Amino acid sequence: MTLRIGLIGAGIMGSDHAKILSRDIPGISLHHVCDADTARATSVAEAYGARHVASDPMAVIADSAVDAVLIASPDHTHAALTKACVEAGKPVLCEKPLSQDSAECLDVIAAEVKAGRRLVQIGFMRRFDPAYVEMKSAFDQGSVGPALMMHHFHRNVSAPPSFTGQMAITNSAPHEFDIARFMLDTEYASISVFRPDFADSNKAGAPVFMVLKTIAGQLVNVEVNNNAAYGYDVRGELVGETGSIFLRSPIASELNTNLQSITTYPADWRPRFAEAYRLQNMAWVKSIETGKPAGASAWDGYAATLVAEAGVRSLKSGETVPVALVAKPKLY
Amino acid sequence: MTLRIGLIGAGIMGSDHAKILSRDIPGISLHHVCDADTARATSVAEAYGARHVASDPMAVIADSAVDAVLIASPDHTHAALTKACVEAGKPVLCEKPLSQDSAECLDVIAAEVKAGRRLVQIGFMRRFDPAYVEMKSAFDQGSVGPALMMHHFHRNVSAPPSFTGQMAITNSAPHEFDIARFMLDTEYASISVFRPDFADSNKAGAPVFMVLKTIAGQLVNVEVNNNAAYGYDVRGELVGETGSIFLRSPIASELNTNLQSITTYPADWRPRFAEAYRLQNMAWVKSIETGKPAGASAWDGYAATLVAEAGVRSLKSGETVPVALVAKPKLY
Amino acid sequence: MTLRIGLIGAGIMGSDHAKILSRDIPGISLHHVCDADTARATSVAEAYGARHVASDPMAVIADSAVDAVLIASPDHTHAALTKACVEAGKPVLCEKPLSQDSAECLDVIAAEVKAGRRLVQIGFMRRFDPAYVEMKSAFDQGSVGPALMMHHFHRNVSAPPSFTGQMAITNSAPHEFDIARFMLDTEYASISVFRPDFADSNKAGAPVFMVLKTIAGQLVNVEVNNNAAYGYDVRGELVGETGSIFLRSPIASELNTNLQSITTYPADWRPRFAEAYRLQNMAWVKSIETGKPAGASAWDGYAATLVAEAGVRSLKSGETVPVALVAKPKLY
Amino acid sequence: MTLRIGLIGAGIMGSDHAKILSRDIPGISLHHVCDADTARATSVAEAYGARHVASDPMAVIADSAVDAVLIASPDHTHAALTKACVEAGKPVLCEKPLSQDSAECLDVIAAEVKAGRRLVQIGFMRRFDPAYVEMKSAFDQGSVGPALMMHHFHRNVSAPPSFTGQMAITNSAPHEFDIARFMLDTEYASISVFRPDFADSNKAGAPVFMVLKTIAGQLVNVEVNNNAAYGYDVRGELVGETGSIFLRSPIASELNTNLQSITTYPADWRPRFAEAYRLQNMAWVKSIETGKPAGASAWDGYAATLVAEAGVRSLKSGETVPVALVAKPKLY
Repeated sequence: MTLRIGLIGAGIMGSDHAKILSRDIPGISLHHVCDADTARATSVAEAYGARHVASDPMAVIADSAVDAVLIASPDHTHAALTKACVEAGKPVLCEKPLSQDSAECLDVIAAEVKAGRRLVQIGFMRRFDPAYVEMKSAFDQGSVGPALMMHHFHRNVSAPPSFTGQMAITNSAPHEFDIARFMLDTEYASISVFRPDFADSNKAGAPVFMVLKTIAGQLVNVEVNNNAAYGYDVRGELVGETGSIFLRSPIASELNTNLQSITTYPADWRPRFAEAYRLQNMAWVKSIETGKPAGASAWDGYAATLVAEAGVRSLKSGETVPVALVAKPKLY
Repeated sequence: MTLRIGLIGAGIMGSDHAKILSRDIPGISLHHVCDADTARATSVAEAYGARHVASDPMAVIADSAVDAVLIASPDHTHAALTKACVEAGKPVLCEKPLSQDSAECLDVIAAEVKAGRRLVQIGFMRRFDPAYVEMKSAFDQGSVGPALMMHHFHRNVSAPPSFTGQMAITNSAPHEFDIARFMLDTEYASISVFRPDFADSNKAGAPVFMVLKTIAGQLVNVEVNNNAAYGYDVRGELVGETGSIFLRSPIASELNTNLQSITTYPADWRPRFAEAYRLQNMAWVKSIETGKPAGASAWDGYAATLVAEAGVRSLKSGETVPVALVAKPKLY
Repeated sequence: MTLRIGLIGAGIMGSDHAKILSRDIPGISLHHVCDADTARATSVAEAYGARHVASDPMAVIADSAVDAVLIASPDHTHAALTKACVEAGKPVLCEKPLSQDSAECLDVIAAEVKAGRRLVQIGFMRRFDPAYVEMKSAFDQGSVGPALMMHHFHRNVSAPPSFTGQMAITNSAPHEFDIARFMLDTEYASISVFRPDFADSNKAGAPVFMVLKTIAGQLVNVEVNNNAAYGYDVRGELVGETGSIFLRSPIASELNTNLQSITTYPADWRPRFAEAYRLQNMAWVKSIETGKPAGASAWDGYAATLVAEAGVRSLKSGETVPVALVAKPKLY
Repeated sequence: MTLRIGLIGAGIMGSDHAKILSRDIPGISLHHVCDADTARATSVAEAYGARHVASDPMAVIADSAVDAVLIASPDHTHAALTKACVEAGKPVLCEKPLSQDSAECLDVIAAEVKAGRRLVQIGFMRRFDPAYVEMKSAFDQGSVGPALMMHHFHRNVSAPPSFTGQMAITNSAPHEFDIARFMLDTEYASISVFRPDFADSNKAGAPVFMVLKTIAGQLVNVEVNNNAAYGYDVRGELVGETGSIFLRSPIASELNTNLQSITTYPADWRPRFAEAYRLQNMAWVKSIETGKPAGASAWDGYAATLVAEAGVRSLKSGETVPVALVAKPKLY
């Protein structure tokens, strides 16, 4: 049985997803590529063998020929489209963030609770990255004892001009908010945001540093530096009572030249997390076949958004801001 | 158009190939799983959704429903089966070695030359490993100047009792013989084999150390240590006139505990080269679709076998043994 | 001309200093070893060839046969003894901290200002550690552009029972407070202290995490984890606008065994900083010969103590606490 | 009691030794600096506080005011000067090689045997390098089981025009010949020398690759590449039956910039082995005080020279050449 997928969004992420679906995943067909920009949708559809091009996402979701939906459209459309998928009873993989408004996330959750079954997976692909999987496996086996702290470093080469310091919290850090929750299996209690006051502090990509406390009392520290210049680099460390687990950008080979030993960083996240995206999308397709949810849920999407909202308030006030989740529905 | 594949051999390698084909590669169907041990064939067929089970490889090759053949049967059957595929006009991916007898390799080459087109790919999967690809790319860009030497270290945890020192040359080292030829784009002129004379020198998995010279005059050194005990570990270094490129087992995370910082080795080759096998098999399927050959050819298979034969003679005589290839057909 | 040194304190640090002075530094003689515990003083004096044993530090300082004084006595005695050295016109190397009371530090400064010349060096030995020196050199050459942030990780295997969380700020973190000031050439404006609320939060060695802001607006983050269990490990990273410089525990060799690649951590600070202590003490002796001060000054000692005091207040209040230095005397 | 040392040779190595002796080692005085070039001797003497300048090494050795001699003169003078020291009953540290003629080494040995006590230390400083010491300690504790093989890589940035391929064997490789003998506690049985036949094979610094067999049957492989261009880099690996110990150039810090993570190599051996030279010279001075020999003996110097001679014959003949030591005197 071939699973017919409707892809909504044909930008960078949508195009990457089309490539993964068509090249790496047996048993599916790319049924629709949908984008407000029809030329872009057509280009992606042709490149990756999709059958149809569309411009109305709601029509794609409603199409009875579509078995499942992958949402990679602009962030502000995520929640409404995801909710529509849920209401149509269709499994959906939605790129992160589910929304930048926690109330919208709760709407999706309410729809899913009403549907009575898990249909939503959020694209927190790090949960499938082999290095994080290895870290979690080691931690779950007790190799470092109970967790005390996690440190995260999230660095991009440069931010687009529109990428404000606030977006470091709302668009970049959710990856860390999610992976730390996932690793520690807890929720956040509070967040404190700091930023360097250097000359160009208002420029796009200004770094932020966050100290979160979990309800279990652990510290989770997150540096987001979107103008790190030197490379795309994600590092992390989980510090337990008897040891620590350290994760850094993987290295394939080393070049010795000019009195230097050189390893390279990628220019953006795609080479670093290519395998994570592939494994995520495979797991999503498999979860549809088996009916067993995989990856991050709508609840996880809500939790990440809620702490980002608190982070934005902390950035503005300079104060520690508490994080107060609603009661977790039994579905999750 | 779905490509129907006949898989011959349902042992460890055959099972791995069935898994890769069914799980990771769109556009194909696993048509036959063939093994002399029908129960084993059935088990693999069921695990990976193959349509048919067979015990006669020649019948699979002859079956008009089979578009292409993957050979993972015992080594001594490789050449005859590959030749049969060529004569049937069917693309074939044959696990290494093509044969342990260079004359048999020449038979396959003759058949392919007669067919007038490249149908054979040999499973030297390291050519697709991202680390070796990165090494080759850096070398081809001139980052270390002209090559002077390559060093190779090939270590397994332990060898089965049947794995003699000679097999280190005929079964393990061909990976290095091939990847060094591929990297340097040359052929071998001679080989000198050394071995430690330690107490258990005749035991299975006794290490060998080889010094090869290429016709371009470079040195290629290969340690094969099949009882290395500590882990599966493949390292290499390409030394050029202005620098070197070093490759070692990749690292995902690091555990700090008990006054130690620990990274892990896999217990066998499969985790290390999982991605290489996946990419190799994808490239093979794509090469059938496009008609453009990928990976190692029958000629490459012959070259690796010929140098292994010379290596065995050197092991026995303690002398340097020249390697004399036949003239290379224009097809390659 | 042999420089006659009076060593005050014959505990772990005093004994180490006696060893360095006698074994590694030409041109000096260990004139006195002074300790309230005369047996301990005698033992150190005999082991390292000191001429005299004493129990009264003020008498050692006053002794006209003593040219310079090294203070490694209990922390609470540092400031008074250092001040006495200054008043006696004798060069003094005082182990950190100068005091845990910034007012006492100001007393020493006042005495030195009155003396009109620099006589005090504080034992912030990291300034002489080759790795930090390499970091500073790279930073000063502009290799990462203007500094945005520093991250510090300071981990000990285990803390003695008396080592409270507060002491992580007053006794351990001063090393980081000093090295970051030294690296960035600035002072601190504020400090915010966090700690994990895990079950045994009041136990000795409970970790703290500090976020400091410099008057230049940079962030300096410091984890002190005195029960890190896995090893003595000091790491740091200086993040600039165009890159970063990373420093970790040095590695001499790597052991491959049991599916692991293992490098080791020392059990305490001494192997890690042995070279730093040696170079520091050499620089101190040389500074006496040349009259040019080396290393950290009394002012540096005051700055580290002042921020530690602010840190303790922040630990108690949970608030960000400003750091307000007095005006810096021209002497520094 | 101050030990008065006569330094013979004021070139690069002599100057380095003068610096170490005067700056790092208490209890000695640099009595003479002797060089045929008196200006050079004077310059070194002034820089490092030597009392006297001399041009006749035999007079220095004979001077009753000289307690011990350090020889860093041109290689061809080493053996005769060392022998003269022995005959004068004076402890001597002679830079490697003891001689490039094994017969000369035997003369020194005969003199020392006649003297009836060990007076000669050869400057194989790697025995004091902390990384090699760590390797030896791990090996001696059985951490990798019985040794099977050692791999050595010895690379310099560039060779002077006079540095022929043969000198790679006679002047560079003795460091590896010695450290492997020391590590494995055995002697060599044979050596086979290979070299790449690249275009400029006769140029200075042409690389050689050597395969040695020990009398215990282990393999010792040595690459010497004096035009490695990329940096001064010494690596080694000791492969045992249950694991391996790997040693590479130490790293102090890592610079992240321009999509690269960069660590540095020194331009020559001095930074890499500065600590080894310091510890070697300290051990030499201490051995004089205690009467217990330290480091490599005249026998070790002979063994290294003998295998180098065999290596030169192998380089010329292309054959494996046996190494036949004389019977070892009881003194060693």
